Amino acid sequence: MAAPGPLDAGAGVIEHSPNQGRAWRGTRITALLAERLAVPVALDDDARLGALGEALLGAGRGADPLVYVTVSSGIGSGIVSGGRMLRGAHGLAGEVGHLVVDPDGPRCACGRRGDVESYAGGAALARRARRAWPSGRLADGSAAPRDAAGIFRAARAGDPLARGIVAEAAEALGRGLAALATAIDPERIVVGGSLALSQGALVRRAVAIARRRCLAETGRRLVVVQSALGETSVLAGAALLAAELAGGAPPPGP
Amino acid sequence: MAAPGPLDAGAGVIEHSPNQGRAWRGTRITALLAERLAVPVALDDDARLGALGEALLGAGRGADPLVYVTVSSGIGSGIVSGGRMLRGAHGLAGEVGHLVVDPDGPRCACGRRGDVESYAGGAALARRARRAWPSGRLADGSAAPRDAAGIFRAARAGDPLARGIVAEAAEALGRGLAALATAIDPERIVVGGSLALSQGALVRRAVAIARRRCLAETGRRLVVVQSALGETSVLAGAALLAAELAGGAPPPGP
Repeated sequence: MAAPGPLDAGAGVIEHSPNQGRAWRGTRITALLAERLAVPVALDDDARLGALGEALLGAGRGADPLVYVTVSSGIGSGIVSGGRMLRGAHGLAGEVGHLVVDPDGPRCACGRRGDVESYAGGAALARRARRAWPSGRLADGSAAPRDAAGIFRAARAGDPLARGIVAEAAEALGRGLAALATAIDPERIVVGGSLALSQGALVRRAVAIARRRCLAETGRRLVVVQSALGETSVLAGAALLAAELAGGAPPPGP
Repeated sequence: MAAPGPLDAGAGVIEHSPNQGRAWRGTRITALLAERLAVPVALDDDARLGALGEALLGAGRGADPLVYVTVSSGIGSGIVSGGRMLRGAHGLAGEVGHLVVDPDGPRCACGRRGDVESYAGGAALARRARRAWPSGRLADGSAAPRDAAGIFRAARAGDPLARGIVAEAAEALGRGLAALATAIDPERIVVGGSLALSQGALVRRAVAIARRRCLAETGRRLVVVQSALGETSVLAGAALLAAELAGGAPPPGP
């Protein structure tokens, strides 16, 4: 099972899932599912499983280290180095959605202000839309955006407020990519998630910004490609995890 | 041989060493030294070798992943995960000194503006001192600081300009630590380098800021300790590298 982090993969517990609501906090999800389904159930972070899927079966094949960044309702990332998922000491490696860009920025579901997700995550963008146009109307009288896709449409149509929100989203996402590129120096970054896959222009702008927000040598060598597996990269990673835990044949090498 | 990065360890070439001057750029240092000394010479990044030294012989023993951050004239870091140095695809992993915090900030020797090193590196702080007090005098007529240590002294004595520079240095260093903590989720961060070792209060402030600039779960679990090997951590790492390349006994495990 893939779930948004942070979670305790070893214990099978969702610790705190900002975009899924408080009811999930502390849920022993693997025990519950194993009982209902009468099969062993393993849990890991969705971004990390997406990274594993893309590294072994998708757009990250042959790249080492490989970073996968998912931009959908939330923002997360996973790192595969030397064929291993880099989980970190507490399973929190790659939680780039919650790296703070501006401590005075918008409030994130995680409690911080001005982190990458508060500017560029789909759920946060929907919240920004509701606040940016409280009347529900644009200056020209047409219906105001109510979600991320609507903001991007309004920006393309020239609405100045929407353009500002998109520029801030690109800057924040660019800072997140720059932080990952700086720490890891990946051979390739694969970007997926519904928002990234539907808003290619956002990703292109963020990559251009990321190149200028880290060492010039790092920025010049930054290679960012689109997910090859799309919405199934996380499922591919979960299947690879299940195969590994079942002691089956090792997954195809990178 | 340890040298400041970025460098090409495999080819034995210093690529670009912002704080050492342009004369070093492109120097094939291992070939030159091997010829003069008539022994094999290996090269790696000083921060990365410091990380290896601290991970295997110093304050990072037993911690996995282990991040080492050096704050002296420049700022760099190294990562050891699963007993291996994480070099990255181009030997640039951990170049956190050049992660941009504010694109309108002070100019760094690397060419960027507002990166971590431009606020918190010793050489950059000396440049800031020369610009902050062009008359060479503080408001009370005493001699103005001319280097990083002088700025910290003036800040402790209450000079408002010096206090502002120190606050910006702590914020920038905190952002750099937060970026590393977010990407890697290290079990421990070891901080060394002459400036960090002489200015413990700067490091403590930076750590307090880092805790607030990343996911709360990450910040709460952040453990930062002082280098155990001090100025010799880099030498210890270089000796471990030489031993490894000489095919001698494996270095003591973490």
